[in-house]
Amino acid sequence: MRYPITQAYRLLSPRLLTLITTVNLKNGINAAPADFVSPASFNPPIVIVSLTPGIRTYKNIKETNEFVINILPRQYLDQILRCAARYPEGINKLEIVGLKWYSSSIVKPPRIKEANIWLECRALEEKRVGDHFAIFGEVLAAEVRDEIIKEGEVDLAKVSPVLHLIKDNFAVDYKIIKHKRYDYK
Amino acid sequence: MRYPITQAYRLLSPRLLTLITTVNLKNGINAAPADFVSPASFNPPIVIVSLTPGIRTYKNIKETNEFVINILPRQYLDQILRCAARYPEGINKLEIVGLKWYSSSIVKPPRIKEANIWLECRALEEKRVGDHFAIFGEVLAAEVRDEIIKEGEVDLAKVSPVLHLIKDNFAVDYKIIKHKRYDYK
Repeated sequence: MRYPITQAYRLLSPRLLTLITTVNLKNGINAAPADFVSPASFNPPIVIVSLTPGIRTYKNIKETNEFVINILPRQYLDQILRCAARYPEGINKLEIVGLKWYSSSIVKPPRIKEANIWLECRALEEKRVGDHFAIFGEVLAAEVRDEIIKEGEVDLAKVSPVLHLIKDNFAVDYKIIKHKRYDYK
Repeated sequence: MRYPITQAYRLLSPRLLTLITTVNLKNGINAAPADFVSPASFNPPIVIVSLTPGIRTYKNIKETNEFVINILPRQYLDQILRCAARYPEGINKLEIVGLKWYSSSIVKPPRIKEANIWLECRALEEKRVGDHFAIFGEVLAAEVRDEIIKEGEVDLAKVSPVLHLIKDNFAVDYKIIKHKRYDYK
């Protein structure tokens, strides 16, 4: 079946659901779910986050150039999604939805306490891509919650993120399998 | 635990594992797995695929400006990964790994027959991002295998893609849940 091309993004799924924290010039905290997020470079470590320009997260990154990508476990799905709602400027959404935060190691935007993984990023530049802006963010610090480390590596079974599928469908509780990889092309 | 920042890309996972088909100027077919793939714009529909410049897929896109993103179900994981191996120019990897292909509707690179989802793309431009190049591809056609359509929409339980986690770990067989979404920020 031909699928409408302006909805083709739905077919590139599931996508990791992240919660992005930013601050404005007055250090007012904002948080917003984002799933147009992808790594782009190993070294220097750069990620691409595509955002619509109307949202506060985008404006905050324009103002202060920093953001944190937080990956929360699945029990916080409702809180993550509630951060999508629009509140008046000056309202800290994290307080409203009931998530806690603490200071990042390098950047001003805070880390979400309930997350398992945090990537502190500095926006290097942006590029208009259709109706979104792609933000190129250098990863300045990456941290994994100690409780989900096993023998020096991430215990993948414990990260338990939510993945976004189509519309109100989300994927959780995947099975992890191992498979040999081959030399890269 | 602090995580090495040049390996931070591993933490943005799981990532959808796709198989990208391209052709060179002589219509020689290439295929390569890619998981640095993300939607970026709804309208026009644009996706971003980040590739290392040394691989044939990147060279083919530079030459012919087109590619197809194929999403195969999990039973083809080994074939997808075997497409990562380097073969001499002129070898069609799809023949070697045992995947079939057929003509796309608009672009020259073929579709993989075993896939459930195909996005035919034209590269609009590229941008150097650290040690990779981000390719901005406009989706010209999107198609979903008829057998996985139910009541006019994708039957998500039947897409069954593979997701890449860390190193040789992959995620499959996730559980699909529904959750109300909120007005966007």
